[in-house]
Amino acid sequence: MASVSRFSLPLRRLKCSPATLQKQSRLRPAAQVRWATATTEPHQADKSGGTKEAPAPAKAVKFTSESYPELKRDSKYSQITPEHVKFFQDLLGSGSAVIDGLSTDATDDIEPFNSDWMRKYRGHSKVVLKPGSTEEVSKILKYCNDNMLAVVPQGGNTGLVGGSVPVFDEIVINLQRMTNIRSFDEVSGILVAEAGVVLEIADSFLAEKNHIFPLDLGAKGSCQIGGNVATNAGGLRLLRYGSLHGNVLGIEAVLPDGTIVDDLIKLRKNNTGYDIKQLFIGGEGTIGIITAISILCPQRSSALNVAYFGLESYEKCQQAFREAKTQLSEILSAFELMDGRSQKLLNRATGRKLPLEGEHPFYCLIETSGSNSDHDSEKLSNFLEHVMESEIVSDGVLAQDQTQIRDLWSCREGIPECLGHWGGVYKYDLSIPISSMYDIVNDVRDRMTEAGLTGDDDAHPVVDVVGYGHMGDSNVHLNIPVRRYDKKVEKALEPFVYEWVQGKNGSISAEHGLGIQKKPYIGYSRSDTMVKLMKQIKDLYDPNGIMNPYKYL
Amino acid sequence: MASVSRFSLPLRRLKCSPATLQKQSRLRPAAQVRWATATTEPHQADKSGGTKEAPAPAKAVKFTSESYPELKRDSKYSQITPEHVKFFQDLLGSGSAVIDGLSTDATDDIEPFNSDWMRKYRGHSKVVLKPGSTEEVSKILKYCNDNMLAVVPQGGNTGLVGGSVPVFDEIVINLQRMTNIRSFDEVSGILVAEAGVVLEIADSFLAEKNHIFPLDLGAKGSCQIGGNVATNAGGLRLLRYGSLHGNVLGIEAVLPDGTIVDDLIKLRKNNTGYDIKQLFIGGEGTIGIITAISILCPQRSSALNVAYFGLESYEKCQQAFREAKTQLSEILSAFELMDGRSQKLLNRATGRKLPLEGEHPFYCLIETSGSNSDHDSEKLSNFLEHVMESEIVSDGVLAQDQTQIRDLWSCREGIPECLGHWGGVYKYDLSIPISSMYDIVNDVRDRMTEAGLTGDDDAHPVVDVVGYGHMGDSNVHLNIPVRRYDKKVEKALEPFVYEWVQGKNGSISAEHGLGIQKKPYIGYSRSDTMVKLMKQIKDLYDPNGIMNPYKYL
Repeated sequence: MASVSRFSLPLRRLKCSPATLQKQSRLRPAAQVRWATATTEPHQADKSGGTKEAPAPAKAVKFTSESYPELKRDSKYSQITPEHVKFFQDLLGSGSAVIDGLSTDATDDIEPFNSDWMRKYRGHSKVVLKPGSTEEVSKILKYCNDNMLAVVPQGGNTGLVGGSVPVFDEIVINLQRMTNIRSFDEVSGILVAEAGVVLEIADSFLAEKNHIFPLDLGAKGSCQIGGNVATNAGGLRLLRYGSLHGNVLGIEAVLPDGTIVDDLIKLRKNNTGYDIKQLFIGGEGTIGIITAISILCPQRSSALNVAYFGLESYEKCQQAFREAKTQLSEILSAFELMDGRSQKLLNRATGRKLPLEGEHPFYCLIETSGSNSDHDSEKLSNFLEHVMESEIVSDGVLAQDQTQIRDLWSCREGIPECLGHWGGVYKYDLSIPISSMYDIVNDVRDRMTEAGLTGDDDAHPVVDVVGYGHMGDSNVHLNIPVRRYDKKVEKALEPFVYEWVQGKNGSISAEHGLGIQKKPYIGYSRSDTMVKLMKQIKDLYDPNGIMNPYKYL
Repeated sequence: MASVSRFSLPLRRLKCSPATLQKQSRLRPAAQVRWATATTEPHQADKSGGTKEAPAPAKAVKFTSESYPELKRDSKYSQITPEHVKFFQDLLGSGSAVIDGLSTDATDDIEPFNSDWMRKYRGHSKVVLKPGSTEEVSKILKYCNDNMLAVVPQGGNTGLVGGSVPVFDEIVINLQRMTNIRSFDEVSGILVAEAGVVLEIADSFLAEKNHIFPLDLGAKGSCQIGGNVATNAGGLRLLRYGSLHGNVLGIEAVLPDGTIVDDLIKLRKNNTGYDIKQLFIGGEGTIGIITAISILCPQRSSALNVAYFGLESYEKCQQAFREAKTQLSEILSAFELMDGRSQKLLNRATGRKLPLEGEHPFYCLIETSGSNSDHDSEKLSNFLEHVMESEIVSDGVLAQDQTQIRDLWSCREGIPECLGHWGGVYKYDLSIPISSMYDIVNDVRDRMTEAGLTGDDDAHPVVDVVGYGHMGDSNVHLNIPVRRYDKKVEKALEPFVYEWVQGKNGSISAEHGLGIQKKPYIGYSRSDTMVKLMKQIKDLYDPNGIMNPYKYL
C-alpha cells in the first residue's frame, strides 16, 4: 500500500516544518497566470495528413448530412441566391466580412467554418458573414428572417456537440470581428465586452486589472465569450465562482426579427421584471445571437498552489475530495479527476513525461487560490499531511513555480486534445451523483471489450475508454478515442450511455450542451412537460425557425 | 481626526501581537449562529394601538384600492361564489386549509393575509387557501384559471412592495402548509425543500449538517424560501455566495393551467435546454407558483468574525470597502453600511445602546467567515491595523463571542423594523454605482427639508431620511420613516427618486422586486423593448392574467 516514503521529491519537501514551508511558499509566483494551452484550433484540422497516428484532414470528414441520413433539409428555408449575397456585401462591405462561396469557389476559405475541430460534423454552407456591430447582426437577422434563410451563429467553433457548424446550407454568422472590450469597473469588477472576444484575451485584460474571468477552460485560446455564454460553459473555475447564470449580469442579443435585446445591465442586483437574459445563457444560439455580455469578475488571488496526486482507487479520490472541501474550504479553486488511462494516452499521444513516477489508477489535481500565501500553504500542508498519513493519496507533487503550475495543469487540460490523436473521439459530458460517477467509465469499457471493439491494432476502432473531469462539480467526461468513427461503436454506446445516466437521475449534458449530437436524447434528462415548455420558448422567439435548425430541441 | 487611542476596548485588544490575537481568536465561538431576529411578523400589526410612538393597527390601514384610486378591479375576473368555496373545501378539507370569509364573518382571520407588515397595502380578499401539496396547488390553479378567478400567491408575507397581498378580492394562496424538507445531500450540499419552509428553519436544519443556506436576511424568522426565490431576494450573503439565479439548481412550480413544472434538478450542472426555471426566480408569482426548490448550500465556516466601525465620511466607507475586498478577499462574507441617522433612530425606537460611544456620520459592519480561525484573525488584524493607522476608520469594536456577534448584527438587521415605529416608512431599494450611492440619501433629505416636510412634531410627516444597505453589492436602502403616509411626501419622492436613479443607470429595485409599488416605474430601469419582451412571457404563461394581477408589469 501507499506509504509516505513513496512520495516524490517535490512533495516530500512539504514534510518539513510549517515555518520552512511558508518561507518556501513565499518564493512561489504570486500571479495567477497559466500557459496558453495548445488547444486544437478549429482550423487546424487541415494541417496534416490522415495517417493512422495523425488526425484526418478536414476534407476527409464525412458530411453531417451523410452521418445522419435521417436528417433532411427543411424545404421551408430558401436557397441562398446571388441577390441575397449582394445584400450582405452591401451591408458589410466587400472585404473579408462576407465569404461568398456562391459566385466564387471559396471552399477552402469556408471549410473551417463548415466543420468542427473534432472532425465529426461538417456542413454545406456557401456563405459566411462576419458582422462588426450589433446593428449589423440585427440587419442580417431581420433580412434572413424576412427571407426564410436559416442561419447558424458561430463563435470560436470549439464546441463538442456540433452546435456551431451548419448541417446543410445555413448561413454562418461568425462573431470574430466583434472584439471590443466596452468597459471595466475596477471597484465592482464588472466587465462589459463583445461576444467575439476570445476568452484568454478577456482573462489577460483582466489580469492587468488584478481580476480574473470567472470561467476558464482548455479551449480558452480559441473560444469566444459569446459562445461560452450561449453554451453556458462550465469549466475549471465553476467549483469556486459558480455558473454563468449567476455571474452574467447582462446580455445584449439580437432576436431573429432584428430586435436588439438591450439588457446589458452593469449592476450586481436588479429585480425589475423577468430575467429574460437567462434564456440566452445555454440557449445555444437557437433564439437569438448574443452580441455582448456584462459579467462579474472576481479579484485575482495573489497566492496560487497546484498539487497533483496519484491514488489507488476511485473511493480514495472521493475521500480526497471530501477532505479538500473541509480543509481547503474557501481557498479551493479546482478539484479535477483524471483516470490513469487518460494520463497514459496523454503520454502516448504527446510524448510528454508525466509528473509522477510509476502508475496509478487515478490522479487528482487540486488548485488553491487565496489572498495570503502563508495561510494557503499552511492549509495545504495540513491537508497534504493528512491525506498522505491516512494513505488516501499514494504519491504526489506540489508545483514550486509558475512553470510547474503550468505543467501540472497541462496534464488535465491536454487530455481533450490528445484524445483526438488517433482519428476521432466519442465524447460524453455527464453529471452523475459523485458516488457512482466513475462507474459509467468502467461499464462502457467492459461493454466495448465484450463487443470486441477495443484493441491495439487498426482492426479495432476503439483505442481505449477513459474518464476525467470536474470532480468538484460531479461532472465526468467519458471519452472513447477511436481510430475511425464507426456505427458499431455508436450502437454499443447509444442509447446505453443515456439510459445509464437516466437511471442515476443524472444529466446527459453537464456543460457541453445539446447541439446536434444530443438533440434526440434530451428526454433522458428532461420530462415531456419541460420539453414542451422549451418548445414554446423557441416558437415565441423564433417562429420561423431560422435560428440554428436541426439542433437542440 | 481619528486616532488609535480613540478605539474602544474590545478593538484595542487587536493591537496586541498576532500570536496573542490568534490565541484570543481561538476562544471565539466557532459556530455560525446568529440570533433569531425580532423581525415584525406579518400578523403582528394587530398587537398594539395606533398612538404616535407605536404602530397603527392593521384595521386602520387604508385599503390599497383607496390609496391607489386609479386602480380598478378588472371585470374580466369572476366574483367568488359559495360554489367556488365549496370546491376548495372539498379539495382541501373543511379544516383551517380554507378560510371562508364569504359565508362566515372571517374578517379577523383573513386580515393578516390581506395586509402587509408595513401597514401600507391592504386588500379585500374573502378567501384564503392553504394547499398542502403540489397537486393541490395544481388543482386550485386549474380551477381558478378555468373559472377566471384571480389569485395572489403568498409566502411569509414579509415583502416590501405590496406583492404578496391582494388588491381587490383575489384569492390568497398561502404556502405555509408546504413545509417538507425533501432531501439533503451532505457531499454535494444540495437541499430540496418545499416553498413554505421558513428561511430560518431551513438554515437551522443545514446548521446541523454543517452547511448554510446561501441567503440570509433580516426577515428570516418569517419569510419562506419559496417567496425568497419568487422575489429573488438578495440579502446579507450575496456578496460571498452570489445570487439565487446561480444557487437555485431546480424548481418545482405550477402554471395557471395546472401544469406542474417538474424541473427540480439536483445537479450542479445540467445543460439540457432553456433554463426556464430562471423566469420564476424574481417572477413574483405572476406566471406560476413555486412549490419547491433545489438549492446549492455552501459548507458552514468554522470561524466567524464580526466588526463594527464608525467612520467620518462616505468616502472613508468606500476606502474601507476597497481595503476589505483586497485584504479580506476570500473570507469577506458581508460588508454592510449604516448611516449615523439610521443608528440614532434604532436607538430612539428600541432604546438599545449602540456599540460605540460618541457619534459618527457612518458605520460599517464587516463579517468574515473562513475555515481557519487563526488565519482569519491574522487577516482581520492586518486589515484593522491598516484602516486604523491610515485613519480610514475612526472607532470600532470586534465581537469577542457569539452574543457580541449577535449584538453587532442587530445594529444592522434591526433597522428595517425600527423605522416603522413612528407609523410608516417609505422604502426604496436601489442599485447605484458605489461612488454616488449615498448621494441619493442626502439629496432626498435636502428635498424633504426644503419642502418643510421634516420635523420633530406631529405637524411634520417625515421623521428623518436615512440610508443603509449592502455596500458590497452597491445596494442602498433609502428609507423615509414617517408619522403617517402622506400624498405630499409621495409627491416629493416620486418620480424624483426614480429619475435620480435612472440618471445614474441604476436599478429602482435592487432586491425587493416590483410588486404594486413599482409597477408604474419599471421603465426607469428597463427599456420599452425589455418590457415588451417581459409582457410576452406573462402572456405566454398566464394568458388569462389570473396570477397576481395589478402588479409587476
